[in-house]
Amino acid sequence: MMEVTLIAQAAEVLEALLAAGLTVATAESCTGGLISAALTHHAGSSRSVLGGAVTYSNAMKHRMLGVADPLFGGVGAVSSEVAEAMANGVLNVSGADIAISVTGIAGPDGGTTDKPVGTVWLGLARRGRPTETHLLTLQGDRRSVRTQSAVRALALVGEAARSR
Amino acid sequence: MMEVTLIAQAAEVLEALLAAGLTVATAESCTGGLISAALTHHAGSSRSVLGGAVTYSNAMKHRMLGVADPLFGGVGAVSSEVAEAMANGVLNVSGADIAISVTGIAGPDGGTTDKPVGTVWLGLARRGRPTETHLLTLQGDRRSVRTQSAVRALALVGEAARSR
Repeated sequence: MMEVTLIAQAAEVLEALLAAGLTVATAESCTGGLISAALTHHAGSSRSVLGGAVTYSNAMKHRMLGVADPLFGGVGAVSSEVAEAMANGVLNVSGADIAISVTGIAGPDGGTTDKPVGTVWLGLARRGRPTETHLLTLQGDRRSVRTQSAVRALALVGEAARSR
Repeated sequence: MMEVTLIAQAAEVLEALLAAGLTVATAESCTGGLISAALTHHAGSSRSVLGGAVTYSNAMKHRMLGVADPLFGGVGAVSSEVAEAMANGVLNVSGADIAISVTGIAGPDGGTTDKPVGTVWLGLARRGRPTETHLLTLQGDRRSVRTQSAVRALALVGEAARSR
């Protein structure tokens, strides 16, 4: 489930974080810990990776990250608003310089007409900058959607680290 | 980094959890998300897996799981006490039936004479039962220590699910 490419990418991102002296935290829903597992695969990752939350349930998104409950019944857990709140939440609780969040529908169940399987929102939060969100519309099975989501999330972290 | 055996084992554990109607939460330090990533690899895992915390830093163990700060300077982060507090913490915040925690030294750095690389504590918390901790003394490199830790942790969850 952990693709070799994901591990290699995590090494590059970690190198960029360490070079910039930046810390990172993660808030993962559909990727379920893949991003943090890939980053912490590498020796020395504890100098940059503070940790994060795997918030599979909405209750966990609320309790661990402070995502406002009304969002779930409103825009839904897979939304720009929840991705933003997850990223901001883990940035705050961790004190990290950069936080990345992922919330999406990996499938095979859970898709709807409006939000089919492969719909994924990423959130990128940084100290002193507006939080960004990005919509991914991915093809493929559960494993592929999870891996692609992690790859895109790590790419955002890497860009953020290099642009500091 | 995610071994095929770990994914297969996670499938069995998930099946036991679903058969027993039990939910699970995770608190991972040295495994960095491997356990939750393995469990959520599988379709339908959201019916049992609530999520958890990846608490690489001590500050995250304190802030996300309520581990008492004095423990870190006392018994240290890799200890029965911290494993217990992490498992209890994520059980409480998640409301899960079963919680598993892992705190250890995956290496290659961080080992000491008292706690060499491969020293890992697991915590198993369940509603209405005393929390258990288990000491592992593992051989191998970082990847191997992480994988063995995740395998042993999942085994505890599987036994707990089947014994209910």
